[in-house]
Amino acid sequence: MARRVDINCDMGESFGVYTLGHDAEVIRWITSANVACGFHAGDPTVMDRTVRLAREHGVGIGAHMGFPDLRGFGRRPMHVDTEDLINDIVYQIGALAAFCRRHGLSLQHTKSHGSMNNMADHDRRVAEAIVEAGLAVAPDVPALVKPGTPLHEIAEARGAPFVLEVYADRAYHRDLSLVSRKVPGAVISDPEEIADRVARMVIDGKVTTIEGDDVDIQAESICVHGDTKGALDIVKAVRTRLEQEGVEVAPLGTWWRAARR
Amino acid sequence: MARRVDINCDMGESFGVYTLGHDAEVIRWITSANVACGFHAGDPTVMDRTVRLAREHGVGIGAHMGFPDLRGFGRRPMHVDTEDLINDIVYQIGALAAFCRRHGLSLQHTKSHGSMNNMADHDRRVAEAIVEAGLAVAPDVPALVKPGTPLHEIAEARGAPFVLEVYADRAYHRDLSLVSRKVPGAVISDPEEIADRVARMVIDGKVTTIEGDDVDIQAESICVHGDTKGALDIVKAVRTRLEQEGVEVAPLGTWWRAARR
Amino acid sequence: MARRVDINCDMGESFGVYTLGHDAEVIRWITSANVACGFHAGDPTVMDRTVRLAREHGVGIGAHMGFPDLRGFGRRPMHVDTEDLINDIVYQIGALAAFCRRHGLSLQHTKSHGSMNNMADHDRRVAEAIVEAGLAVAPDVPALVKPGTPLHEIAEARGAPFVLEVYADRAYHRDLSLVSRKVPGAVISDPEEIADRVARMVIDGKVTTIEGDDVDIQAESICVHGDTKGALDIVKAVRTRLEQEGVEVAPLGTWWRAARR
Amino acid sequence: MARRVDINCDMGESFGVYTLGHDAEVIRWITSANVACGFHAGDPTVMDRTVRLAREHGVGIGAHMGFPDLRGFGRRPMHVDTEDLINDIVYQIGALAAFCRRHGLSLQHTKSHGSMNNMADHDRRVAEAIVEAGLAVAPDVPALVKPGTPLHEIAEARGAPFVLEVYADRAYHRDLSLVSRKVPGAVISDPEEIADRVARMVIDGKVTTIEGDDVDIQAESICVHGDTKGALDIVKAVRTRLEQEGVEVAPLGTWWRAARR
Repeated sequence: MARRVDINCDMGESFGVYTLGHDAEVIRWITSANVACGFHAGDPTVMDRTVRLAREHGVGIGAHMGFPDLRGFGRRPMHVDTEDLINDIVYQIGALAAFCRRHGLSLQHTKSHGSMNNMADHDRRVAEAIVEAGLAVAPDVPALVKPGTPLHEIAEARGAPFVLEVYADRAYHRDLSLVSRKVPGAVISDPEEIADRVARMVIDGKVTTIEGDDVDIQAESICVHGDTKGALDIVKAVRTRLEQEGVEVAPLGTWWRAARR
Repeated sequence: MARRVDINCDMGESFGVYTLGHDAEVIRWITSANVACGFHAGDPTVMDRTVRLAREHGVGIGAHMGFPDLRGFGRRPMHVDTEDLINDIVYQIGALAAFCRRHGLSLQHTKSHGSMNNMADHDRRVAEAIVEAGLAVAPDVPALVKPGTPLHEIAEARGAPFVLEVYADRAYHRDLSLVSRKVPGAVISDPEEIADRVARMVIDGKVTTIEGDDVDIQAESICVHGDTKGALDIVKAVRTRLEQEGVEVAPLGTWWRAARR
Repeated sequence: MARRVDINCDMGESFGVYTLGHDAEVIRWITSANVACGFHAGDPTVMDRTVRLAREHGVGIGAHMGFPDLRGFGRRPMHVDTEDLINDIVYQIGALAAFCRRHGLSLQHTKSHGSMNNMADHDRRVAEAIVEAGLAVAPDVPALVKPGTPLHEIAEARGAPFVLEVYADRAYHRDLSLVSRKVPGAVISDPEEIADRVARMVIDGKVTTIEGDDVDIQAESICVHGDTKGALDIVKAVRTRLEQEGVEVAPLGTWWRAARR
Repeated sequence: MARRVDINCDMGESFGVYTLGHDAEVIRWITSANVACGFHAGDPTVMDRTVRLAREHGVGIGAHMGFPDLRGFGRRPMHVDTEDLINDIVYQIGALAAFCRRHGLSLQHTKSHGSMNNMADHDRRVAEAIVEAGLAVAPDVPALVKPGTPLHEIAEARGAPFVLEVYADRAYHRDLSLVSRKVPGAVISDPEEIADRVARMVIDGKVTTIEGDDVDIQAESICVHGDTKGALDIVKAVRTRLEQEGVEVAPLGTWWRAARR
C-alpha cells in the first residue's frame, strides 16, 4: 500500500490585529498549508507572511477558498449563485498565487473551506463550481477532495487534478461520509488512537467505520488541525507514527503527479 | 513626435447590484481598461465580466489597485503602512491576473487608483511601495505613471517598466503636476478644447500650462473618464481627433516594449 | 372595510458613490420608508439623508434590517445562528433609531429585508429571532408582517406589535403566500391592474388568487417598489386610485395604535 | 483634591471567531468599559455579550467609536469627510445604545478610538465632528476628553458634557499632550510607578512631565489597558493603590453630574 503521504493543515487564518492558530509551531509538523485568501479569514499581509513561513519549512502552499464572510469565518451556509461562486474562487486562487510568485513558488493545491467545502459534499452545483474555477485558472493544480463525494466524482469526470484527503480525527460512515459532529464519537481526541487510525488508512487502506465495519479508503493527504494545543499533540503523534512505520511524509506537490502514472 | 498612443479609462467599478459607469459604450473608444480589483470598487463577477468585455473589444487590461475602502471609493487618504500597502497591491494584481488567465489574456498594465495614486504624486514611500509590489509579482507589466512624479522617478531608478500618462481634461502646472480640482480652470470640459490639447500633447509633445507657458510633456497613454454622459463625448472627441491627425490609437501592450528600444 | 392605509417602499439603498433607486421622486407618493441600515445596503450618510428626506415629506421611518451581505444586497440566503441574528437586528434598529433621534423623530416601524424576510415566511426560527429582537429594543414599534406567515403568528402570540402588509404587484396563493417569482403571472406589471387589485384588497378585503378564487386579505400597508421608472408609475397609480376611492393614505404611525382598539 | 475617580478600559474588541483582550478578568477591576461598535472592532454579538458582562459587574458602558477599518483596528489615519464622520459616529452610538436598552441600561459615556481619537488631539475639524455627533444623539452623555485638547475645548465651548481623562501608563508634556510612543520613556511599564503617578494625578492634581516639571492635571477618569497580561497587573495596581489612598473608584455615570455643580 501507500508508503507516501501528505499532511495538510489550515494556516494563515489571522486577520489584522487578530491572531488565530499556532502556525509557527504547526508548520514544523505538516507538509501542506491551506492558506486563507482573505474572504473567510486572512488578509494580504497574513497571506504574505504565511507563504514565507511555508517556504522556509518546505511546506507546499494551497489556496483555501471560502465564502465572503469574515464574521462567520466562512462556516455559515450561504447561497452564492454559480457565477459568483466561480468568480469568488478564481479571485482567491489568483490572489494567493501572486504571493507564491512573489516568493518564487508555485501554488501546490487548492482546498475549499468550511461551509463551501461541506456544501460540496452533497450539492453538485457547488462542487461543479469549484472544479470549474480550478480548471479556469489553475488547471494543473490538484484540489483536495474527500473520497466518494461529488467534488471527487466531478473532478474525475472532468479530468481535473485532485488528491484524496482523509480526516485524522473524524469518524467515517460506510460510504466514507464524515459522521456529523453532533453524533457522539464523531470526533476522536486521543492522539494515539488517531495515529493508529491514520497509519491504518495510509498503510493498509482501511478504516473502521462508526458502524463497526472495515471499509476501503485511500489516503493521499491527511487533514489535521492546528488551532488548539491538543491539536498540536495530534499532529505530532500522527507524523511521528507515520515516520516510525516507514511512510514518507512529503508535500503532495513533490509526488502526486508521479503517483497518477 | 509620437504617432502612436494609448487611451485608458477606469472600468469595472460596479459592485453587486450597484452599477457605475457606462462601460459597454466607453469600451468602444478606448484601448486600455483600468479594472477595479475589489478593494475600492468592483467584485469578482464584475471583474470577470469586465475582462471578458475588454477581450471582446481588443482592449488591454490593467489592474487598478486602490485602498481597501469601498465606502469611500478609494478616494479617502488612508495611512496604510508599507508592508500592508505592498501586500494589498500584490493581492489585487494577483486577483485580476487570474481573470486575465481565465480568458486567455495577460495583464497589460497596472495603475494605482484614487487616493493611492494621488499620494504617490508626492509621498515617496507610497510610490516605492507601488513599484516594489509591481516588481514582486508583475515585473514585466508597465505601470501608468504621471511624468515627473516620484512614481515615475522611482520606477525609472529601479528599472521597473512604466508608461507615461497624461490627463485629457486636466490643467497642468509648469512642473507637470495637475492643478488641484479646487482651482478654477483645473478641469476642462469642452470636448473640442480637450481634443486640441490631447492632440498637441501627443503629436507635438507640448502643453500650455495654467500659468500660460508651453512646456514639454510626453504622452504615451491618455487618461479619459467614462462615468458621465459628458465624459463619453470627450472620449469620442479625443479618439476621433487623434485618428484624424493620423495618430495610431492602440493598446499600449502592443507597442510599448518596441517604443523603449 | 378599511378606509385608511399606509404605502411603504424600500429607501436609502445607495452606498458610498453608488446610487440606487429614485428616492427623491418616490418619497412624494408613499407614507412609510423602509430605510436600509448598512448591512445589505445603505451607509450612515445615506441613512441620515434618507431620514431627513422622509421627515421633509412627512413619511414614517422604518428600520429595514438585512443580512450582512452588501455584495448580495441581502438577497442571498445565509444561515445566521439565532444569537447573531437577534443581535444583528438589534444593532441595525439601534443605528437607524439614532438618525431618527437626531432629526427629532421616532422610529415608526421595522421590516426585515430580502432573504431574511423570505426566510421568515417559512422558517419559524428566523421569525422568532425577528420578533425577539424587536421586543428587546423597540417593543412599541410595529413590524410589517405578511398575513398568515410565521412572523405574523409569532408576533401575535408574543404580543409584539405588527401591521399587516400586502404586496401591490405580486400574485397570491389561497393561503396568502406569495407566488414564486419564477411562476408566470407572479409579478403584475400593469399599473391600472395593480391599482384595481390594491383598491380591492384595501376597501373590500379581497384578492383574487392565481388559482382564480377570491380570498379574504387584510391590508394595512401596501408594499410598492421604487427602483425602476415603471415602479414609479405603479406607485402613482396605486396612490391616485386609493385617494379617488376615498381611502385615506397616511403613515401607519399616525393611526395603527387606534386601529388596534 | 478629588476623592473619586473612574477607571475606563477598552472592551469588546473581539470579532467573530477572533478573540482579543481579557475582558472577563479586566472587567473586575474597572468601572467603565469603552465598547467597540463594529467599525474598528467588535460585532453585534460581541457588543451584546460585553454589555451583559458590564452590567453583571456594575460597570458603566461607553460607545467606543472608531474609523470603519477592521483590518487596521481603527488605528490607521483616514481622511473621513465631516458629514461621513458625524454620521459614522451617530450610527455607532445608536447601535451600542440599542444593546444598553436591551439590557435595561443607559449609555454612560462616549469615547473616540485609536486614530480618530488621536486626530481629535490636533485636528479641530475631527474634534468638532465628534462633539457635533454626540450632541445630535446623546446630548446628556459625556465624552471622555484629554485635558487641553481641541476635543476638550470644543466640548466646553458648545456646552457638551465631558469627563477629563488621563492615561495611566503614558508620559505627558508640559501642555498635557501625550509623549509620542516613539520617544523613549513615553510608555511607563512598572505597575507601582504607574500607581504612584495615577494616585498623584487623582489626589494631588499633579503630574511630573517628561521634561521634569510638575504641572497641574485634572483626572476624572483613568484610562488603562486590558490587552496584555502585564496590562492586567497595572490595572490591579492602580485600583488597589487608589482604594488604599481612600479614593472612591466608581463608574463616572454615578457621580459626574454632581461633580459639575
